[in-house]
Amino acid sequence: MGGPVMTATALNLVPTSFDPDTSHFCSQDGVRFAGRHLLVDLWHATRLDDLAHVEETLTLAVAACGATLLRIDLHRFTENNGISGVAVLAESHMSIHTWPECGYAALDIFVCGNCDPYKALPVLKAAFRPGNIQIAEHKRGLLP
Amino acid sequence: MGGPVMTATALNLVPTSFDPDTSHFCSQDGVRFAGRHLLVDLWHATRLDDLAHVEETLTLAVAACGATLLRIDLHRFTENNGISGVAVLAESHMSIHTWPECGYAALDIFVCGNCDPYKALPVLKAAFRPGNIQIAEHKRGLLP
Repeated sequence: MGGPVMTATALNLVPTSFDPDTSHFCSQDGVRFAGRHLLVDLWHATRLDDLAHVEETLTLAVAACGATLLRIDLHRFTENNGISGVAVLAESHMSIHTWPECGYAALDIFVCGNCDPYKALPVLKAAFRPGNIQIAEHKRGLLP
Repeated sequence: MGGPVMTATALNLVPTSFDPDTSHFCSQDGVRFAGRHLLVDLWHATRLDDLAHVEETLTLAVAACGATLLRIDLHRFTENNGISGVAVLAESHMSIHTWPECGYAALDIFVCGNCDPYKALPVLKAAFRPGNIQIAEHKRGLLP
């Protein structure tokens, strides 16, 4: 009786004036959300120390998703020849971090609107020839 | 009887010569992995359209995690005043994408080695005053 009263306003995550269509929120299986975020782990992968190849692959993967590339930033780490690459997109981002010494690469692909992050997978498979792939999907910004 | 024989080599995800200590893999609760990756959703958040504030917050959050900033790339979207910001780190990356029109921001914090991604949370809470936070953690590059 004496506790705080949870109002409808407090429970709502977004203002009542918010229109998910105008903000290009995704719609799938009856739910609305801001975007799809894939975490992709590649194992037994090759060419993870090839900077030009990583840059070309990111560019192709972004295009395959139907996304718009704003900038790619790449760094090579001298200790293990690993590469970090981040592509900033009009629809969020795509990143790759590689450990060539163990054939491992960690990627994430976060895209909003009508982009399809799964379209990046054939590009990544062709480019890095992984023996094993693990994928997790998160729907980011899931509306109540 | 006629199917492929799965060998120990095929089951192993990394070469036998690989040393996770040399590659600065994390160790926690008896498992080894490349890094921690947090997906952080902020709701009812403020100052999501303030580019200088977002840049300062990313810089402070990176430092709080104990990570080394290599570069920050920021973009503003004219349609909704949203901001995309990506910080490339020596230990992977941190990103933020904001939808000011609904008080929502999607962040991810991926750090390797001895960095602690959770140390970014107090910085984010102080900077954006979210009414609600959702967090998912992935251990990336989990060794068998």
